[in-house]
Amino acid sequence: MTEFKDIHSRQLQLLSDDELNLRLNRVRAGLEAAGADSVLITDAANIYYLTGRVFAGYVYFNVADSKPYYIVRRPNDLISDRSSRLGRFAEIADILCHNQNCTAPARLGLEFDIISYNLSTRLMNTIAGIEFADASGAMRRARSVKTRLEQHMMKESGLRHERVYSRIPHVYQVGMTDIELQVEIERQSRLEGNLGIFRISGSDMEIHMGNVITGENSDTPTPYDFAMGGAGLNPSLPVGADGSIIEPHHTVMVDVNGDFTGYMTDMTRCFALGTLDSKTLGAHQLSIDIVHALTDMARPGAAARELYEKAAMMAREAGYTDYFMGHRQHAGFVGHGLGIEINEGPVISPRSKDILEAGNAIALEPKFVIPGQGAAGIENTIIVKEEGAAECITNAPEQIIYFE
Amino acid sequence: MTEFKDIHSRQLQLLSDDELNLRLNRVRAGLEAAGADSVLITDAANIYYLTGRVFAGYVYFNVADSKPYYIVRRPNDLISDRSSRLGRFAEIADILCHNQNCTAPARLGLEFDIISYNLSTRLMNTIAGIEFADASGAMRRARSVKTRLEQHMMKESGLRHERVYSRIPHVYQVGMTDIELQVEIERQSRLEGNLGIFRISGSDMEIHMGNVITGENSDTPTPYDFAMGGAGLNPSLPVGADGSIIEPHHTVMVDVNGDFTGYMTDMTRCFALGTLDSKTLGAHQLSIDIVHALTDMARPGAAARELYEKAAMMAREAGYTDYFMGHRQHAGFVGHGLGIEINEGPVISPRSKDILEAGNAIALEPKFVIPGQGAAGIENTIIVKEEGAAECITNAPEQIIYFE
Repeated sequence: MTEFKDIHSRQLQLLSDDELNLRLNRVRAGLEAAGADSVLITDAANIYYLTGRVFAGYVYFNVADSKPYYIVRRPNDLISDRSSRLGRFAEIADILCHNQNCTAPARLGLEFDIISYNLSTRLMNTIAGIEFADASGAMRRARSVKTRLEQHMMKESGLRHERVYSRIPHVYQVGMTDIELQVEIERQSRLEGNLGIFRISGSDMEIHMGNVITGENSDTPTPYDFAMGGAGLNPSLPVGADGSIIEPHHTVMVDVNGDFTGYMTDMTRCFALGTLDSKTLGAHQLSIDIVHALTDMARPGAAARELYEKAAMMAREAGYTDYFMGHRQHAGFVGHGLGIEINEGPVISPRSKDILEAGNAIALEPKFVIPGQGAAGIENTIIVKEEGAAECITNAPEQIIYFE
Repeated sequence: MTEFKDIHSRQLQLLSDDELNLRLNRVRAGLEAAGADSVLITDAANIYYLTGRVFAGYVYFNVADSKPYYIVRRPNDLISDRSSRLGRFAEIADILCHNQNCTAPARLGLEFDIISYNLSTRLMNTIAGIEFADASGAMRRARSVKTRLEQHMMKESGLRHERVYSRIPHVYQVGMTDIELQVEIERQSRLEGNLGIFRISGSDMEIHMGNVITGENSDTPTPYDFAMGGAGLNPSLPVGADGSIIEPHHTVMVDVNGDFTGYMTDMTRCFALGTLDSKTLGAHQLSIDIVHALTDMARPGAAARELYEKAAMMAREAGYTDYFMGHRQHAGFVGHGLGIEINEGPVISPRSKDILEAGNAIALEPKFVIPGQGAAGIENTIIVKEEGAAECITNAPEQIIYFE
């Protein structure tokens, strides 16, 4: 297994050739489906996927070649026999089109879902005389199936994520606010090696490490398509903890990210001070039951849409539809792919066309918001296996944990 | 002065009408210079600038109108008499073009530096029959001059930022690593109200809250155009602390962000355990001298380029050119505008065409990396005044602070 914490190596390609080939084969298939013969990558998450490190510059890959070619702006000390340093932007055309180390592009894929209009048109004007295609879907589909190494890195994050959550009851103190508890959880997580950064594809969502919400605040609608609400501390980041004191008979939902390896796990657990009413307890058990049912359904060939429908049906049959995935505002999904970023494929939603494949990593988060009580439910990260039920990689205890 | 911590208000427009007008006048001038009669904003930082809150959706403003019109996707409970809810994406054309509450666009500005190629082309195809222009520069220029309210919010961040830094010697413990110290600083900052998020325009830079670097690690080149180096903890985020133990006779440079209000301050201070050599001490004093000289030069009408040249000249005359803004890799600037995001205008660099204006908020960070010793120097956030020298709003002591 490739060592992944190799931060002092100056080798540009940190992935082994075998690992790189697994990923290139997936990219190659996606490009061919998109009608492109090549791709020019600049998004940090995609560069990390194709090299094992983040650098400033571009990764160029032509399906006719066995390896990518790297165009580097910074840092200035990376070692590779297949790279050029980019001085003036215009040099990029020559590097792609007149380079004996890689095949010139005829129909070049760009990350049109990610890179800006100005950068896209600048690239298309500079690399003139060829055609262009959208490579966003190809890269998204490639990354939605994790290799064994990627699964290993996610499992490592999951183990450390569990350790952090096991310490939550020990950092809670009577009279704490939601944000005070969140800060202590963040500290535990950072000391456990959390990189802090919460990578999200696109610009629709912003968050700092995750959320801790309690009581009424759980029901405050947010701008973001997260499953959790909360007013936040400031109108510039209106989500999550709002400084509410953690009161008896309300839940405290903890959904703090687990990026310990460059690959994230997502896990939610519920805590409480004092007893909870039966509606809240029922919602929590229902969430556990849904996660288990969906983990069992999550097999190669299953339709993502059917997993969503199963969750919605279980909520309906238990009389919890009004509280399912929010109350004053409902999120439109019950799970999402994740890995380098928190919002990868497949999406578990009513209109999803995704079909599950072995190697998908999916966060399942059927949550409920009970007015006056708070949010209930859990979230696990699972990996779809070749055979049998999916494997849960976030194995902290699922029942509500009561603060002493 | 408008109250800005009004997180539980459901009013869409949180800015007072007077404050909004100040900002709209700047946007209006920028749009006219760009040949646009209107703008459609969707970037979170720009939405925050034009409303005082972040929501998912769009702000439309036509220079012929006195107020913007809002198109809201989420949250679902905002109150405004000038808004539409966006259902299907295609409805946006009707909302802009057939709406008695706002003037239809003829040449519509979009944020082409920020929004993706796919979103841009989708908007242009949907809102057909009109012309489009790039509004990136207009928004950037508008935001580069801070109103009195914005300055007030930055000063409030500066005060809290100072409080956090004053506690750094108290959280240091002998034998700590760089990252352990950083985690304790992050905790102090979060308890002081730091929102955690570090907003950066564009996708070239990623970071979690800031950097703490010591010793040799200070000289490790990074992918990012930050003034500070460091290998980081993982190749997926190769910047900053790498787990080095804080050793005697090396500096510890702390550059952790100050986003307490939605408006950031940027401040760097140096700490040390035991004595430092004369070259390092000289570099630190030189940095202080440069910051003071540039603070005095930073007056309306001054060329940003001249400030950079002054800094480079002072470094050269003191014999520190090889260490100025890095050693193995040099950053290409000595200061940058900031506010909602860390990389706003003006830019203090050799090729900058920016001319300073009253109300610019600028982080000045002439830093030096001394091989074998670490990084030396300070960073202050200043505000350019109508008359006289600029005002420093990050007033923690500037001399090196020695851990006991």
